[in-house]
Amino acid sequence: MSKVQQLQNYLQQHNIDAAFITTPDNVFYFSNFKSNPHERLLGVVVFKEAAPFLICPQMEVPDAKAAGWTYDVIGHLDTDNAWDILAKKIAESGSTIAKLAIEKSHLTVERLEALTSFYPTASFERLDDQINAMRVIKDEAELAKMREAAKLADYAVEVGCKEIAEGKTEMEILNAIESAIKAKGYAMSFDTMVLAGEKSASPHGTPGDRKIKRGDMILFDLGVIYEGYCSDITRTVAFGEVSEAQKDIYNTVREANERAVAAVKPGVRACDLDKISRDVITEAGYGEYFTHRLGHGLGISVHEYPSVTGANTLALQPGMVFTIEPGVYKADVTGVRIEDDVVVTEDGVEVLTKFTKELVIL
Amino acid sequence: MSKVQQLQNYLQQHNIDAAFITTPDNVFYFSNFKSNPHERLLGVVVFKEAAPFLICPQMEVPDAKAAGWTYDVIGHLDTDNAWDILAKKIAESGSTIAKLAIEKSHLTVERLEALTSFYPTASFERLDDQINAMRVIKDEAELAKMREAAKLADYAVEVGCKEIAEGKTEMEILNAIESAIKAKGYAMSFDTMVLAGEKSASPHGTPGDRKIKRGDMILFDLGVIYEGYCSDITRTVAFGEVSEAQKDIYNTVREANERAVAAVKPGVRACDLDKISRDVITEAGYGEYFTHRLGHGLGISVHEYPSVTGANTLALQPGMVFTIEPGVYKADVTGVRIEDDVVVTEDGVEVLTKFTKELVIL
Repeated sequence: MSKVQQLQNYLQQHNIDAAFITTPDNVFYFSNFKSNPHERLLGVVVFKEAAPFLICPQMEVPDAKAAGWTYDVIGHLDTDNAWDILAKKIAESGSTIAKLAIEKSHLTVERLEALTSFYPTASFERLDDQINAMRVIKDEAELAKMREAAKLADYAVEVGCKEIAEGKTEMEILNAIESAIKAKGYAMSFDTMVLAGEKSASPHGTPGDRKIKRGDMILFDLGVIYEGYCSDITRTVAFGEVSEAQKDIYNTVREANERAVAAVKPGVRACDLDKISRDVITEAGYGEYFTHRLGHGLGISVHEYPSVTGANTLALQPGMVFTIEPGVYKADVTGVRIEDDVVVTEDGVEVLTKFTKELVIL
Repeated sequence: MSKVQQLQNYLQQHNIDAAFITTPDNVFYFSNFKSNPHERLLGVVVFKEAAPFLICPQMEVPDAKAAGWTYDVIGHLDTDNAWDILAKKIAESGSTIAKLAIEKSHLTVERLEALTSFYPTASFERLDDQINAMRVIKDEAELAKMREAAKLADYAVEVGCKEIAEGKTEMEILNAIESAIKAKGYAMSFDTMVLAGEKSASPHGTPGDRKIKRGDMILFDLGVIYEGYCSDITRTVAFGEVSEAQKDIYNTVREANERAVAAVKPGVRACDLDKISRDVITEAGYGEYFTHRLGHGLGISVHEYPSVTGANTLALQPGMVFTIEPGVYKADVTGVRIEDDVVVTEDGVEVLTKFTKELVIL
């Protein structure tokens, strides 16, 4: 059954007249058309019964069709009122709109006010959880793409390791990594991070002109998009001899990563994984330096549902894909994060990212 | 007067208790802290009277302080309910919240529901227009940054021109451009576009493995960020001899660009500029191939207020910065777009992008 049909079934079961989907990644999920519309209106309308349609800027109409969307595509010019065009097309479908499902975690207040002006008596239902429930389970076609995305991420880390040399800057290494991926015709799934020495202890730091020197640990956090699906890997490597204190943090984070990865199977809860990993770090005395959640869902978006936190009691199911990325950030010693992309299988786990977790000393 | 103080004055004049700012670019505008919080809560609360504060993920607290925000910074962990922490801090300020200004074009329905649960009787006012009104007029410090960003964009186009050679792919040229900018320590303001031959006729096309051949026109659309401010330039150049039909489109677009640029001065309306440019193209017989607005505001965001369309009657004022980017996309001949970044001055225009608009034949 197509994804559009699955959503139609949901609308029928819940007696919702239509779903209005505007998150670009969700539009891609249903239409295979990936586009960043900036402030312009891009959306898919799926009706309980009538045929769905896609609305996008006029100049992108050919691209939307070429992406494989076989239903109607409605364009709007910058001089048009896109909302009038949307409402007219909905009216033409013959559907009344008493209940409309919207993405409350994405749709803006302004856009809700626009919809309310057309459908003043309609109720607006939350669609987010249903789309999350669909997207969180990856089918074989999606997993095949994610395996390729992860292979490219492994390759990117390899390139990074080869580039490391005394006196080179973080940006030079970053640049070599991104060039190698672009040369293969792929894009990064987010801004690549290369952080050296004390900078590795800033979990969301910005690469710059910090030069590599002996005794540094260097943290790579990067991902690649393959046919619309993202990978996301972190590895931390050593340049020359590193201290026992650095190695101790490395080994702790590695064990925290590996224990959580080994625990992945259907029925285990997201919070259980976070606890397994966090306990390792806490017992080693670094608890206060692990300042973020264990991981996040991964797929079309680089951060998507579910969040792998100590508070999330969601039970894992086969087909879920997420990151496991414990970290310790101790500015006077080093930062270390080790991140894998994992798939929940019928009886355990498949690890997509395969770059070694042995401490690499360059 | 600081930007926070300007906003406080506005709140006092309109008797609004507080403003809640969550658009990352607006957070940067008020705090100098640039961050992409993904789905996490990042915001600045400015009160009518009490001191403002910034709320962000715990791990970014040091970065927010380092960016120069001198008021309180409140962190939240992934296991916290960030909204509880926000509401508690607001309560501690001693301010009652009867009227709260929000960014309706950014705040999601879900977040509005969260705010409503804390302030069930509050009214929510639209803050967007006030922030737009502030951001649209760039001060001298901002203009100085935008001049640098534009210089870097000129340089990037130069690099692209030097890289063009028979048989090279769009991606190879793109890669060389982005490498050159990264090597200088800067980031692009959006995904660089290099489109060759027939692909130049897709206004939002994707660079790929299309190889350059003689007789192609090649379109560069790119921008660079300098200290948080963006540039955005488009140039279209020729590789080898191009046809009279291609040249005719080039000359038409160039005239459309130059006429609009020359017309910029205080009091002229955005729609007047669009008309001046569009008339040139229509009179040359290409009207149907100019499928987008003339331009968009530029600053911290690469697309910001105002939109330069045929429908926007906004009168220009000194300090406004926007793009002028007419294009003609005729798939069987070529696509051509020529885009400049312009500042409205007291008596006319300053053009920030200086790469030549003569037809460059490589």
